[in-house]
Amino acid sequence: MAVTLKELAVRVGATVRGDDSVLIEGIATLRNAGPRDLSFFANRRYRRDLRETRAGAVLLAPEDLDDCPVPALVAANTRLAYALIAELLHPLPAVEAGVHPDASVSPEAELGAGVVVGAGSVVEAGARLGAGVQVGPGCVVGRDVRIGGGSRLVASVTLCHGVSIGCRVLIHPGAVIGADGFGLALEEGVWHKVPQIGSVQIGDDVEIGANTTVDRGAIEDTVIEEGVKLDNQIQVAHNVHIGAHTAIAGCAGIAGSTRIGRRCQIAGAAEISGHLEIVDDVVVTVGSLVTNDIREPGVYSSGSPLMPNGQWRRSMARIKQIDELAKRIKALEQRLAELGE
Amino acid sequence: MAVTLKELAVRVGATVRGDDSVLIEGIATLRNAGPRDLSFFANRRYRRDLRETRAGAVLLAPEDLDDCPVPALVAANTRLAYALIAELLHPLPAVEAGVHPDASVSPEAELGAGVVVGAGSVVEAGARLGAGVQVGPGCVVGRDVRIGGGSRLVASVTLCHGVSIGCRVLIHPGAVIGADGFGLALEEGVWHKVPQIGSVQIGDDVEIGANTTVDRGAIEDTVIEEGVKLDNQIQVAHNVHIGAHTAIAGCAGIAGSTRIGRRCQIAGAAEISGHLEIVDDVVVTVGSLVTNDIREPGVYSSGSPLMPNGQWRRSMARIKQIDELAKRIKALEQRLAELGE
Amino acid sequence: MAVTLKELAVRVGATVRGDDSVLIEGIATLRNAGPRDLSFFANRRYRRDLRETRAGAVLLAPEDLDDCPVPALVAANTRLAYALIAELLHPLPAVEAGVHPDASVSPEAELGAGVVVGAGSVVEAGARLGAGVQVGPGCVVGRDVRIGGGSRLVASVTLCHGVSIGCRVLIHPGAVIGADGFGLALEEGVWHKVPQIGSVQIGDDVEIGANTTVDRGAIEDTVIEEGVKLDNQIQVAHNVHIGAHTAIAGCAGIAGSTRIGRRCQIAGAAEISGHLEIVDDVVVTVGSLVTNDIREPGVYSSGSPLMPNGQWRRSMARIKQIDELAKRIKALEQRLAELGE
Repeated sequence: MAVTLKELAVRVGATVRGDDSVLIEGIATLRNAGPRDLSFFANRRYRRDLRETRAGAVLLAPEDLDDCPVPALVAANTRLAYALIAELLHPLPAVEAGVHPDASVSPEAELGAGVVVGAGSVVEAGARLGAGVQVGPGCVVGRDVRIGGGSRLVASVTLCHGVSIGCRVLIHPGAVIGADGFGLALEEGVWHKVPQIGSVQIGDDVEIGANTTVDRGAIEDTVIEEGVKLDNQIQVAHNVHIGAHTAIAGCAGIAGSTRIGRRCQIAGAAEISGHLEIVDDVVVTVGSLVTNDIREPGVYSSGSPLMPNGQWRRSMARIKQIDELAKRIKALEQRLAELGE
Repeated sequence: MAVTLKELAVRVGATVRGDDSVLIEGIATLRNAGPRDLSFFANRRYRRDLRETRAGAVLLAPEDLDDCPVPALVAANTRLAYALIAELLHPLPAVEAGVHPDASVSPEAELGAGVVVGAGSVVEAGARLGAGVQVGPGCVVGRDVRIGGGSRLVASVTLCHGVSIGCRVLIHPGAVIGADGFGLALEEGVWHKVPQIGSVQIGDDVEIGANTTVDRGAIEDTVIEEGVKLDNQIQVAHNVHIGAHTAIAGCAGIAGSTRIGRRCQIAGAAEISGHLEIVDDVVVTVGSLVTNDIREPGVYSSGSPLMPNGQWRRSMARIKQIDELAKRIKALEQRLAELGE
Repeated sequence: MAVTLKELAVRVGATVRGDDSVLIEGIATLRNAGPRDLSFFANRRYRRDLRETRAGAVLLAPEDLDDCPVPALVAANTRLAYALIAELLHPLPAVEAGVHPDASVSPEAELGAGVVVGAGSVVEAGARLGAGVQVGPGCVVGRDVRIGGGSRLVASVTLCHGVSIGCRVLIHPGAVIGADGFGLALEEGVWHKVPQIGSVQIGDDVEIGANTTVDRGAIEDTVIEEGVKLDNQIQVAHNVHIGAHTAIAGCAGIAGSTRIGRRCQIAGAAEISGHLEIVDDVVVTVGSLVTNDIREPGVYSSGSPLMPNGQWRRSMARIKQIDELAKRIKALEQRLAELGE
């Protein structure tokens, strides 16, 4: 498939600087692009690559035009324009329509128009899949699961009984939605399981990464609102509530009953304790530990700095003494004040 | 299914305050419960919800009776009573008996009475499944695996060859038991694999969360004793030994050959180094890093506090200087002592 | 299978001290070994076990011979010699040849000589599997995937469309290779997906642990060079590049576009931010947070020390004040200097 720069500009609402008849067939990095490739400039570190690129054209913001030696596609939101063009030029591999003969679909499941079920997948009784749902190979769709139209389970996804998935939701391999929350009752030193009778509600346009787990609620449901984006290997415990359009990066963990607001950004490996409230528009940086409510929007961090191992060992010893060090400072101040008098 | 409050009291060893003929059909939260629901009060934060509840009845401890406006079910261990009632009123969805026609069971596997194998599951030669074992859809039970009676693999569980699972064990989707431990030998800058010839032993009444991994031992077995409860996405490396009735929350990691005692509680995202000994009755709080033996029962913590990002950046710089700061305090004390003389 | 000590010595290039006709049938620990077992001494903690062992023979380094009461197999690199012997005496369980009747292999896939595909596995159109590739049960091999000769997917592995796997690669259950990277474009508070059009390249002799995820690249490929060893539950984000013979332990996370050098050792639960450069021969210790480039080989650490909970709480409060404490030290120094004058 080849598209002129002019056509691309029309499709993504951009303008062209230079020859708009250039034919574009694919996308490549500034350094590796050839005359039929569109490239993309967004990170200032790569300005030199921009100046030297041999791409057919470059997608960039107006302020970077001066450094572009080839035709340019100019957009206000370059990242969004890039997303649209990438979708156009690099469509996903075609999927065979219908239910694969090696899938196992219960006669008591309801499949909407155009539903695809891949080889090795299981769809249990009572499941209802909306129009155009794609269940890739190796998935398990449990009893009474609901999946809204246009959603896609890439492969090897497990949806436990009764969970509810919105429309246009994308779930990557190894994700598990609706496993039991971690509910235990202690009696004389022995743990008894507390049944997890809630479920999971996933809103529209949510994306869930590979090997991420979202547990079902203890009594009420675990809720992930529309437009939330979860990366890989995230743990979402029972009764967590994640507000719309919040994005969470890989390896983060959110303990039970915590509420995260809308439009938050939680970086990778952040760990958030249970029963907390985090307001809208909070940013938590990489590897932070959150053990208290966050009541004001803003950027929050924890963690200690990386050091050469020898220095770190000395620092560790000192941190253990820090309360004593603070008291010694106070004592010094008092003695000095007495001396001053 | 509807049960009178009186019947519930008899079944869980509780007493009733108020009308014991109330009919209960389900469980709901204090705020959402209607006249046919039982609700549950345990967290003091929700006292106001208790006072305003319209539940048919509330399960609570004797000391909270005064705030309850409706009939009450009074138990000493409310959490345990709740667990028993939830199991009664919200049983798991029924499972179809027998081996699903879309399962793949080796003729050389032995299945006890009442064993269930779901669609898409594989049971290899030499596996022995005790009476009443339920293998949900999409599981792999490897060669020569042993599973004790009454255990349940919910779905998409992988048990590698030769692992041994006790009775009444519950394993959630995506869990992998018995993958190779991480054993390497270095020769001239190149890693060689060290075969992992041990296996895994899981005791009775263990629960293992979604996407948790328990590696097989290098020579001897990795051991998880009876009653241990593991949440999601926990990594248990080769030759770890976890004592009975220890509970570990999500995203924790335990490196090779570490021994954790009985009745320990390890919070989420705690990371425990290899070759350590942790005695019985130790509590480790969320996100802690354990790099030394713990020889006394007690509560242990590490981690640095969450701060606004600007303050955190300044603190990071200071922590790098902490050894120097401590020396400056010492120098101040000496100079002041000299001045005093 | 029984082998004389003499034969073992020849096979692994070791020498024997004592009776070289001893017959060895298996491997066991020093404490549990019997007269037909070979045992292995490497960790000085277990010197007492060596002195008391009843093993048929012990594999050890020359400097430990004096403490060995039984015949000894003496090797310079005992760990490597152990690996070779373990492979010989404890071969993996045999795998049935060919494509299992309960596997689902596309007629448009190409299988080399001796390829094994286990029950419940799916191989999609365009996949090319080299000679001797073993695909265990429950795997998904996506469209157009390439797998080099001698590689093995143990079970329940998911390879997404188009990824490229080298020769003799070993991938453990639950691993997901080639899921979409986490690429998003923000427009008016709503996230749009950025298609991930790159793929993944895995070099020869790589090992990938259970439930580890390696995402496909945004434009170019994510690359894992030859001989890299990844433990369980590691997250490798899009466009990460890991140099040859680097080893990474469980639960580590590497954010997007970071380059890690050759022969690095990254310990468990280390978290590495995106867009960083880490040179060759770097060691990062357990639980460290890496947020800047590492430009010199060496050992690096971060993290705060484990303390009894009460002490930790006091320390947390002080760490929040550390910038102020440092300023108070400076003020004390100035006042003291003034006093001195």
